[in-house]
Amino acid sequence: MVRVSAGRFFLTSCVSLLRRSAISRMGEAQGLTDKEAKELLKLPDAETKDFIFQQTMYRIKDPRASIPFYNEVLGMNLLCKLDFPEAQFSLYFMGYENISNQPADKKQCIQWAMSRKATLELTHNWGTESDPDQKYHTGNTEPRGYGHIGIMVPDVEKACERFDKLGVEYIKRPEEGRMKGLAFIKDPDGYWIEIFNATKVAGV
Amino acid sequence: MVRVSAGRFFLTSCVSLLRRSAISRMGEAQGLTDKEAKELLKLPDAETKDFIFQQTMYRIKDPRASIPFYNEVLGMNLLCKLDFPEAQFSLYFMGYENISNQPADKKQCIQWAMSRKATLELTHNWGTESDPDQKYHTGNTEPRGYGHIGIMVPDVEKACERFDKLGVEYIKRPEEGRMKGLAFIKDPDGYWIEIFNATKVAGV
Repeated sequence: MVRVSAGRFFLTSCVSLLRRSAISRMGEAQGLTDKEAKELLKLPDAETKDFIFQQTMYRIKDPRASIPFYNEVLGMNLLCKLDFPEAQFSLYFMGYENISNQPADKKQCIQWAMSRKATLELTHNWGTESDPDQKYHTGNTEPRGYGHIGIMVPDVEKACERFDKLGVEYIKRPEEGRMKGLAFIKDPDGYWIEIFNATKVAGV
Repeated sequence: MVRVSAGRFFLTSCVSLLRRSAISRMGEAQGLTDKEAKELLKLPDAETKDFIFQQTMYRIKDPRASIPFYNEVLGMNLLCKLDFPEAQFSLYFMGYENISNQPADKKQCIQWAMSRKATLELTHNWGTESDPDQKYHTGNTEPRGYGHIGIMVPDVEKACERFDKLGVEYIKRPEEGRMKGLAFIKDPDGYWIEIFNATKVAGV
């Protein structure tokens, strides 16, 4: 069975085909109207007021590939590393934080890192890097689910010039596809990363 | 083939079994030392200084289930809704932002929403909600990859009392498993959400 599974702005030529199939299968599929969406919303409960969206976790094959990628290519810092020898895995929290604020004391550093917003938690199950058959699923082929992370940059073309120099692999260059001006690149595991500019997206 | 695929702190009883198998298959697997990890890092390139980690995208089956969940249970607001009628999908950007800052003008609202850090981009491919066979993959069963998002809360037990009242489903309650004091709950598609407190995690 085929399914419409497009991500944001990333419209491949097969979408229209998939769409026709979905419509014929399910009648005239429609999204929510703005009014219907609004009616689903309540004022957030006061008890949730200090909740923060702290992390997005996914598994990586090799920290020797992923850490330099998120550091050099995307400019993130390593906020905190946690090891679990008994269960044979390590966690690397990456994010856009000024590393000079990072406490030297290990416990304080964990507390600091775990209170930052918008961090990427990379989980390394030890040994995956030396297993040639081991590969993680990006979520963008069947079975689909997870899509990507997105990085907002001041200038997509300039960012991509840098990515080109660094040998970054693309899913879609800014000049390709129907949605010009935004790119999708791949991390070392093949996970997708959208590169966009808020003003340009709003102007589309 | 079995693989060690534990997420952070979430150690089920099968991990030790998997670990033994992984070790026998790959020799004495080891993670990076702190020194090795540090040696992988550079000072982020000045050209990346205004990059922000803006979004984490995944696909949802039904916005009528997901929007109230992220709003009522987790206290997020709907920052922006984007519709793509030709490709039959809509995007819902959810996040912890004061909705009174949201511009009324549609273009300005998109620009505002797309400049916020730590947003959740929920992709709804129209019609999935009325297809009984349709189901998204959470990434936590084979084929693994994506793991979860994590919400930092002031008090995990108190948060879970609220979740209980709201009928939230759990992967792990705070009193279960080896890592006490943190919970994993499920969203309407079954995606995992870690609920933790930074101070308690650091004290573990």
